[in-house]
Amino acid sequence: MEIELQVTYQEKAMKQLQADADKIGQLIKVQMDHLTMPQCPLYEEVLDTQMYGLSREIDFAVKLGLVDRIKGNEILSILEKEMTVLHELYTTK
Amino acid sequence: MEIELQVTYQEKAMKQLQADADKIGQLIKVQMDHLTMPQCPLYEEVLDTQMYGLSREIDFAVKLGLVDRIKGNEILSILEKEMTVLHELYTTK
Repeated sequence: MEIELQVTYQEKAMKQLQADADKIGQLIKVQMDHLTMPQCPLYEEVLDTQMYGLSREIDFAVKLGLVDRIKGNEILSILEKEMTVLHELYTTK
Repeated sequence: MEIELQVTYQEKAMKQLQADADKIGQLIKVQMDHLTMPQCPLYEEVLDTQMYGLSREIDFAVKLGLVDRIKGNEILSILEKEMTVLHELYTTK
């Protein structure tokens, strides 16, 4: 039972982080779909703020032993790659 | 044993949040101790960023069921009061 509960918290933590990461992924997608619209100078700031928030959640979960550091970094690095693609699309437009 | 482990994660979560809150409290204190020095325009931004990070950690912990919403809000509201005092000291100086 002890291990079961541990797994529950760990699963919950990963699910929550993934849900928050998905929200950022959605923001990036929306921004990509609207590349032809007038550029919104705030989108980078909004994304940066959200990324910072997510990284704080991940650090917290890692410190508690709920999430593996490598797993946590993976979540961030996937989003960072998407953001780089978005940034390049904007700058080459 | 199940309850014990639950308490462990909950205790860890509260300790970590309190440690992060203490860091912000320390930042506020340092700023208060240096009121006579040339005003640093970035201190408010630094504090706001740190407060946002802490609030994201608290939301995360509350969603996982590790921390009580009321307890979490208390941590933030104590810091907000300290920030108000600091802000007033600056504006009345």
